[in-house]
Amino acid sequence: MTQVIEQATSTAPQSTFTALRCKECGEEYSLGANHVCEDVCFGPLEVVYDYDEIRRRVSRDAIASGPNSIWRYKDFLPVNTDTPIDVGTGMTPLVPANRLARHLGLKRLYIKNDAVNMPTLSFKDRVVSVALTRARELGFSTVSCASTGNLANSTAAIAAHAGLDCCVFIPADLEAGKILGTLIYGPILMAVEGNYDQVNRLCSEVANTHGWGFVNINLRPYYSEGSKTLGFEVAEQLGWQLPDHIVAPLASGSLFGKIYKGFQEFTKVGLVADKAVRFSGAQAEGCSPIAQAFQESRDFISPVKPNTIAKSIAIGNPADGVYALDIARKTQGTIEAVTDAEIVEGMKLLAETEGIFTETAGGTTIAVLKKLVEAGKVDPDETTVAYITGNGLKTQEAVAGYIGEPLTIEAKLDSFERALDRARTLDRLEWQQILV
Amino acid sequence: MTQVIEQATSTAPQSTFTALRCKECGEEYSLGANHVCEDVCFGPLEVVYDYDEIRRRVSRDAIASGPNSIWRYKDFLPVNTDTPIDVGTGMTPLVPANRLARHLGLKRLYIKNDAVNMPTLSFKDRVVSVALTRARELGFSTVSCASTGNLANSTAAIAAHAGLDCCVFIPADLEAGKILGTLIYGPILMAVEGNYDQVNRLCSEVANTHGWGFVNINLRPYYSEGSKTLGFEVAEQLGWQLPDHIVAPLASGSLFGKIYKGFQEFTKVGLVADKAVRFSGAQAEGCSPIAQAFQESRDFISPVKPNTIAKSIAIGNPADGVYALDIARKTQGTIEAVTDAEIVEGMKLLAETEGIFTETAGGTTIAVLKKLVEAGKVDPDETTVAYITGNGLKTQEAVAGYIGEPLTIEAKLDSFERALDRARTLDRLEWQQILV
Repeated sequence: MTQVIEQATSTAPQSTFTALRCKECGEEYSLGANHVCEDVCFGPLEVVYDYDEIRRRVSRDAIASGPNSIWRYKDFLPVNTDTPIDVGTGMTPLVPANRLARHLGLKRLYIKNDAVNMPTLSFKDRVVSVALTRARELGFSTVSCASTGNLANSTAAIAAHAGLDCCVFIPADLEAGKILGTLIYGPILMAVEGNYDQVNRLCSEVANTHGWGFVNINLRPYYSEGSKTLGFEVAEQLGWQLPDHIVAPLASGSLFGKIYKGFQEFTKVGLVADKAVRFSGAQAEGCSPIAQAFQESRDFISPVKPNTIAKSIAIGNPADGVYALDIARKTQGTIEAVTDAEIVEGMKLLAETEGIFTETAGGTTIAVLKKLVEAGKVDPDETTVAYITGNGLKTQEAVAGYIGEPLTIEAKLDSFERALDRARTLDRLEWQQILV
Repeated sequence: MTQVIEQATSTAPQSTFTALRCKECGEEYSLGANHVCEDVCFGPLEVVYDYDEIRRRVSRDAIASGPNSIWRYKDFLPVNTDTPIDVGTGMTPLVPANRLARHLGLKRLYIKNDAVNMPTLSFKDRVVSVALTRARELGFSTVSCASTGNLANSTAAIAAHAGLDCCVFIPADLEAGKILGTLIYGPILMAVEGNYDQVNRLCSEVANTHGWGFVNINLRPYYSEGSKTLGFEVAEQLGWQLPDHIVAPLASGSLFGKIYKGFQEFTKVGLVADKAVRFSGAQAEGCSPIAQAFQESRDFISPVKPNTIAKSIAIGNPADGVYALDIARKTQGTIEAVTDAEIVEGMKLLAETEGIFTETAGGTTIAVLKKLVEAGKVDPDETTVAYITGNGLKTQEAVAGYIGEPLTIEAKLDSFERALDRARTLDRLEWQQILV
């Protein structure tokens, strides 16, 4: 305990975060690169905040006049510096999805669109901006991660911007766009023959032998807090109120829990009125350990071997799975899984109705939303927010072959007219509409 | 003239735009889907504004408290509606590029990063948001375009969001990401066997025979105004002042002229102080008709047949080429061209120093910036803004093979350590830094 107090005093009197604490047994630790309750129970560590201090500092007006990025919520994030790494991350659009809502029979549906998050087009830019800012404060010069792709893109890009050395680890079978979208920034890229869970175990070993800052291992308590901003932004963008129901993808389960925590914190400090928000989670059938536990009313997760096109959420042994289960249950939400074919249909549906091209994880979320609506598990009148977490340009393989081909024509009017006639005979609803 | 006045009166008393006018002879036309001075000289038409009315309406505070999108500048844009199509387009980051600046020997360099513009990751979302809003006002139900790729993505996506039918035309040899990134939204996609200039000619014919709104043909006077927001945003983001020097890619030349017009309009209505800004343009050697005319001191453009990896700016017969020439000359700017190899190096340089993954057009801009610095044509102390107009995930072919490969390893610590040792022997500056 003495160590904790010293640390809190030495880092800054103006700090709003004071310690790390075990989520299971409550043991406190100093604010270093720790993530596991090593002294007692091996539970995960979380950042402890001084909410009285936060309440004194924040107001709706102060936040609204802050930077147009996640750093408008700096008082809720575990960094001390006044100059965090800010590459425009966050404040992505909350899109009123009227055409998709009509298609599904809903009235108030929003898409939180992190497919256009900056700089690397996924929600991971949020957690990495926080983790690398904290890594710099803790003195790391090399940063690293175990990734299913988006995290590798984000860590490599933001490390390049910040001038940090970078080595990232991915499963070797990732989509081309995610590999190239990492290499371009010039990190060391290790492609591990195995699935994400094997990559993750290897990285835990490397974290112990090299003095690197692994954003989602030894920096995980700081890193994961970045996802709270997905809760904060939705509340602010809805005019400082909470939605009735959210649907989000489940990989490790961390994102889900942090959106929940974001809503709770805003309520606790008086920025929004208290409200019961239902939390529903989306998984791919090919990797659905949390959905299976939910359906079978288990309170433990049985790990699975992933086999799905939704690689970015293919975590067979999810670290925060039990916490996600708990949140879904206590909020009267649900957790569902969909097939790869349904995922592709979800990607197409979102693109054709809203002009948003998401990756497979987003297709999973939309397909689960559709399934919940069809099962009567979404009230048409409730305000529902679906979280879209990544961009479709990174998982082009998933839809190639399922969205038709261009009509190739000569640069002549009669060739075009013949093609238009041909298009009439094709089985695409849109084409027929345009040509009638 | 009578027709013009009637039109202006009928559309709205609150309009800040009053007519279309020929850029060459000054003849005025009504505010319909017209783009060519058909009655007199076949020059291009431009929107005419009532700047006294704009001056009465706008202020720095009013703009700053407007939407976080191009629509904060609505008084400068040719639409009447109070509910334009707003999918979060614009207000992309102006990134202080400190690491790239140090690398080049500059002191105040900024990247205007439209690689993360919403929704489809290029500056085209700006012009399409304006064009489709206007198309809806003019009663079009089907929209179309001739595109080198980014415009097709944007038109298809925003049309889907707005519920407009859509048919787009591209050269058949485009990058896979641009084709798939169009098809996903469900338009009719015509792949024309020929280059962009042939596509464009075909579309001019189609525009005459079908009642469609072609954003960059019959709607071009409205469409092109959207690019002014790239000037407005930079001025606002620099704290309501103009930069000393801008570098932007040249395709048709329209973007260049509209950034210039944006700066002029802000000066005219008193939002920024008057200042001489130098305008420099970037082309690929494989399609550099404007750069060639500049170097040879010609005041006319000789069309060329494009042959470059920078397909998005490969316009051999640029519609606004002579205007771009004129602007570069009268502002003491310059126009340069770079090779395809230099373009790839430009993409890598921007990614490795700033964490920004741009497409080939952006690589062209960075490579030209580097060339200008090396030639002593950029003052290290001047505030320079380089415009990055599109995202690298759409032109992956350009860099595949030039950025190395992942190191494939087994999921074992000793395999990782051997790979780290192997990495030491590789010829990548970054890897050696990390491993020393």
